[in-house]
Amino acid sequence: MKRKVSDSVINRLPRYYRYLGELISSGCGRISSKALSEKMNITASQIRQDLNCFGGFGQQGYGYNVNNLYDEIGKILGINKKKTAILVGAGNMGKALVLNTNFEKRGFSLKGVFDADKEKIGTTVGDYEILDYAGIEDFIKENNIEMAIITVSKASVNQVANELEEMGIKGFLNFSYAELNTSDHIAVENIHLSDSLMRLSYKMAEKEAEC
Amino acid sequence: MKRKVSDSVINRLPRYYRYLGELISSGCGRISSKALSEKMNITASQIRQDLNCFGGFGQQGYGYNVNNLYDEIGKILGINKKKTAILVGAGNMGKALVLNTNFEKRGFSLKGVFDADKEKIGTTVGDYEILDYAGIEDFIKENNIEMAIITVSKASVNQVANELEEMGIKGFLNFSYAELNTSDHIAVENIHLSDSLMRLSYKMAEKEAEC
Repeated sequence: MKRKVSDSVINRLPRYYRYLGELISSGCGRISSKALSEKMNITASQIRQDLNCFGGFGQQGYGYNVNNLYDEIGKILGINKKKTAILVGAGNMGKALVLNTNFEKRGFSLKGVFDADKEKIGTTVGDYEILDYAGIEDFIKENNIEMAIITVSKASVNQVANELEEMGIKGFLNFSYAELNTSDHIAVENIHLSDSLMRLSYKMAEKEAEC
Repeated sequence: MKRKVSDSVINRLPRYYRYLGELISSGCGRISSKALSEKMNITASQIRQDLNCFGGFGQQGYGYNVNNLYDEIGKILGINKKKTAILVGAGNMGKALVLNTNFEKRGFSLKGVFDADKEKIGTTVGDYEILDYAGIEDFIKENNIEMAIITVSKASVNQVANELEEMGIKGFLNFSYAELNTSDHIAVENIHLSDSLMRLSYKMAEKEAEC
């Protein structure tokens, strides 16, 4: 049953999941791959092919049951099994994430927010009191923390990541502008804002050339 | 000469560009596709194929001239032609972006920061005074603004995007959790943090299964 799924399929799954979530909110119970295709700007054959990677969930001529498909994709993404998370670095970016992100809906339960800055420790961000980074190891052990969101400076990110890996962290969401040098068995997802800016630069040049 | 380049190549170009920039900083003048491959974790044949899309820049047996390749990829990405930008929404996320992003290095020149909140207008973020959103149309016209980074709430993002499109904005970097309904000739790059969380969730489950 376990097969290697290509990165491009994995990259599309969150979009399916988000979109199906919106369909559920709007009361939609069933959708054809054709309608899903038009709404998501992905070809119907691509959608069928993507979902077939996981055994397919459609019924010929009846389309997809939206709730089932949402649950199944959630299982594939591992969202049904909540993973414990902490955030390290309570600067502007860290605060924005704590205040605006629905971690629970995306597979994670945020348990604590840490910083090393004495002026920040003890203050609050939303429902979280900012805790002292000096005590992070005990916190990780006591709360079985699995994932860390790192929003510290580029200069200190690899030291922090290496320390946290030693303490048992298995996955990182990395917002710094540096690549992490963590071990192979550690999962890393990078948010490269500079790459997004460059892609936008390309797209703008391309759209201009089309006119 | 003008050919349609696949999205996956476009997605890799910013990584090449960033990595080549690091090589230049470290004084490296020439690199083989094999060495580039090992450092970037992309196969050498993939690298040759990617760069061939744009005419290729390597010399058989001599590898790539790092400075040339950096400049050429910069041209392809349109980074050599700076585009004017504004940021709308000076909350935590907006502030983090203004303070931590090197826009100039990524093809954009940030000209102004806007918010509609009377308490924020007139205060400063880094070198920028936060300006009143009510005056944004004149500012866009006077400064020939081409791109807008939007860090407003999901609820107001499409109203803001539509207004800015009317005022002449050609590209958006969208940080809200909503899809933009802008016209086809407008370039949009979305930062979907929730998708990154879900991809990380998948990767963590996958790494766990490997053990």
